[in-house]
Amino acid sequence: MSKADIGLIGLAVMGQNLVLNMNDHGFTVAVFNRTVSKVDKFMESGAKGTKVIGTRSLEELVNSLKSPRRVMLMVQAGKPVDEFIDMLIPLLDKGDIIIDGGNSNYNDSIRRTAYLESKGLLFVGTGVSGGEEGARNGPSIMPGGSIAAWDHVKPIFQSVAAKVSRPDGGEDPCCDWVGEDGAGHYIKMVHNGIEYGDMQLISEAYHLMRDGLGMTHEEMQATFAEWNTGKLDSYLIEITRDILGYKDEDGQALVEKILDAAEQKGTGKWTGISALDMGIPLTLVVEAVLARALSSIKDERESASKVLTGPQPAITGDKQAFLNDLREALYASKIISYTQGYMLFRAAAKEYNWNLNYGGIALMWRGGCIIRSVFLGKIKEAFDNNPALPNLLLDPYFKEQMLSAQAAWRRVVAQAVQQGIPVPTMSSALAFFDGYRSSSLPANLLQAQRDYFGAHTYQRIDKPRGEYFHTNWTGHGGDVTSTVWKKD
Amino acid sequence: MSKADIGLIGLAVMGQNLVLNMNDHGFTVAVFNRTVSKVDKFMESGAKGTKVIGTRSLEELVNSLKSPRRVMLMVQAGKPVDEFIDMLIPLLDKGDIIIDGGNSNYNDSIRRTAYLESKGLLFVGTGVSGGEEGARNGPSIMPGGSIAAWDHVKPIFQSVAAKVSRPDGGEDPCCDWVGEDGAGHYIKMVHNGIEYGDMQLISEAYHLMRDGLGMTHEEMQATFAEWNTGKLDSYLIEITRDILGYKDEDGQALVEKILDAAEQKGTGKWTGISALDMGIPLTLVVEAVLARALSSIKDERESASKVLTGPQPAITGDKQAFLNDLREALYASKIISYTQGYMLFRAAAKEYNWNLNYGGIALMWRGGCIIRSVFLGKIKEAFDNNPALPNLLLDPYFKEQMLSAQAAWRRVVAQAVQQGIPVPTMSSALAFFDGYRSSSLPANLLQAQRDYFGAHTYQRIDKPRGEYFHTNWTGHGGDVTSTVWKKD
Repeated sequence: MSKADIGLIGLAVMGQNLVLNMNDHGFTVAVFNRTVSKVDKFMESGAKGTKVIGTRSLEELVNSLKSPRRVMLMVQAGKPVDEFIDMLIPLLDKGDIIIDGGNSNYNDSIRRTAYLESKGLLFVGTGVSGGEEGARNGPSIMPGGSIAAWDHVKPIFQSVAAKVSRPDGGEDPCCDWVGEDGAGHYIKMVHNGIEYGDMQLISEAYHLMRDGLGMTHEEMQATFAEWNTGKLDSYLIEITRDILGYKDEDGQALVEKILDAAEQKGTGKWTGISALDMGIPLTLVVEAVLARALSSIKDERESASKVLTGPQPAITGDKQAFLNDLREALYASKIISYTQGYMLFRAAAKEYNWNLNYGGIALMWRGGCIIRSVFLGKIKEAFDNNPALPNLLLDPYFKEQMLSAQAAWRRVVAQAVQQGIPVPTMSSALAFFDGYRSSSLPANLLQAQRDYFGAHTYQRIDKPRGEYFHTNWTGHGGDVTSTVWKKD
Repeated sequence: MSKADIGLIGLAVMGQNLVLNMNDHGFTVAVFNRTVSKVDKFMESGAKGTKVIGTRSLEELVNSLKSPRRVMLMVQAGKPVDEFIDMLIPLLDKGDIIIDGGNSNYNDSIRRTAYLESKGLLFVGTGVSGGEEGARNGPSIMPGGSIAAWDHVKPIFQSVAAKVSRPDGGEDPCCDWVGEDGAGHYIKMVHNGIEYGDMQLISEAYHLMRDGLGMTHEEMQATFAEWNTGKLDSYLIEITRDILGYKDEDGQALVEKILDAAEQKGTGKWTGISALDMGIPLTLVVEAVLARALSSIKDERESASKVLTGPQPAITGDKQAFLNDLREALYASKIISYTQGYMLFRAAAKEYNWNLNYGGIALMWRGGCIIRSVFLGKIKEAFDNNPALPNLLLDPYFKEQMLSAQAAWRRVVAQAVQQGIPVPTMSSALAFFDGYRSSSLPANLLQAQRDYFGAHTYQRIDKPRGEYFHTNWTGHGGDVTSTVWKKD
């Protein structure tokens, strides 16, 4: 029996589908699962009639692989990954590669890269997005880690990844090398954070349609179907259309039977923490994460709704005109979200010494993953046109979109505010936009306050940057300056 | 020479002022500073003619203290605190107390409590707020740590703390025992986070007055002076009034010469990270922290302002009516900020096993500290009336305030949105309010999306909680359920 191209550990749904995808593309995959009966079950069901090789121990798995060995983990993030790594190390030879395809924290991937390289092995921490369907038919794959491993995993990863068409008629795989150590998982984390944002934006639009405009599910389905043919064309808009059209057994829209308490697994939270930590105003993703948190206290909201009354939502006037505005508000907010995400990338590249390929990231997300969209092609174009683009909002296409959308966007947010329908991400995005395009913000008052109560000093607009001043605002008090103690 | 009541290490401005404050209240304080010349300088200047004892080594400091010894550190947070602790341990006896009065991270205080207790010593991690003036004349003091230390530090702390009048004519010190290990520094951290929020809210009001209404500094000063006589009466409103009235040498308002790039030291960020980590929707503080981050990229904003044009702000109509609305918007937003802060406390109490005295926290903040206000008296009353109050918004007083303020608040936010003046915290607070009082949020769609692309399952409103359902939305695909792999 010839040796396998790659070994995969972990036969949950994503693992199984990825194996079958690799098999379809002509790769021989050896598989293993800690609960060995899952191997047997898989060999008798999904893998039946394929070239997949079932193995019943890690030794058997490792021995079945070509050199350099490629072992991919599709197991739960955290301890299980470290456990498998420690079990694999003694079985592997110098130059062999361990790939972690789970939703690991990038800090773990930074640590694991250093650890495995110290053992003479190579490590790849890769984001894999697209859910079950993506894994089976072409996911977005975002690998980072030991650069020396890239040539060895590239043929497999780029074969099984989603493909998107180029203007010249060719196609590009939604997989490229992201960067050093934790960069792949970092990009995947931000992908998930942006996914939280996109989902929340769509939910706010749905909320305005349902409760503000009083639309039927058929009308909402038709609206999302229409939006999916234009610049909002994306996977999440597409599935929203389908969800709104899905009827429960009683003929009513199933979506209204679902409990409005959002759950989350942590990557959105991690993205927000990273942004706070580096001081990047990633407001939209953070609002989306916290909107899920607020939704989750359903019982408390139900009690509160009885006493904290407000306007009875009813958006009057031209319904189609409001829907057109809403589409613009959604698009403009989405541009802000990705703008903030790219601001975070620049900060992370600096913080962690990563060489990030900004256009490449947009291309990887263009297909296969949950946030795939026509829109990401525009981001790719922006970086193709100007690889040193300092901010997405300054790209000519996006700038024009913002300028043409803003009046509609303001109308939608103002309307929502008056109607009492919460639009935390749309309004936060607008506040960011207005802040970003303000040459003058009221932070001068804030700096004066800090100097007043804590002698924190301030800079002046009429003096060179880096010169600090302190004013004795009250005209009394000592002249001890604030040195060690820096209150904030 | 009789022995000193307490030793204090670290003679920066806060340390010096705290020493003089203790001296005024009849306590004998021994002082030490790593750079010993600072001790000499202090003894010859501020401490001249007092009972303060200058010491030139840690041994001398420790030997000058009554038993059990109380040694208070007022040094920079982080490594310096650990270094002094390790130098002090061999010099102290069982039952002696080390107090850290710096802006330490609560996680460090949790660690230090356990460490010092393992050495037979006691630890107090205490927040001290009020800036230089507060330290000198009566700060807010928020101690937590080893409960056995409380009786020994209580007389000193409650003497030097700020005092607030009780309705019965007596007065209460703004200092009480907060809770176990890191609780004191946690409360101080949240105090600072809320301070970020209060400052940002005031800055947004000033922005609307200056750029929206085109008010002069005299008019703005008069408005804040008036606000400071009513329910907004607070230290930050008071100093804003003074700042707006302060003229530079050329006779112009000094505040307009100050660079609008806010700085920060980290406690606001920590508060946001703690909220994200525990899943508490502390949106207002987070927006305030991120608004500072956005303000700090002044050069980028200046470039962006040239291309990302928007409305020319000009709020027309009845100016006084808008100012009345603005006062209500500020007050309502402030209620939301403290509501969110108290939600965070409840989560932290659960997470860290702290017994927090919710009314006591409001009382400690009522005077002495940067966020001191009449408003905090209302929070104290709310918890006096109902110690088990589940949420501040459900207290009768605050509920009424919200209901009566909301129309004005909506007008202000809608106006700002139309004018292109960013109000990130006022609008985020309103979105939270509308979310909190919604029995139905659009998170049902979001849960459907998660089930669609990741088989994450959902609960139903017509079935018992805890029962999970999965729908095969597309009608195709396998029947493998999502177990190990939990995408989000």
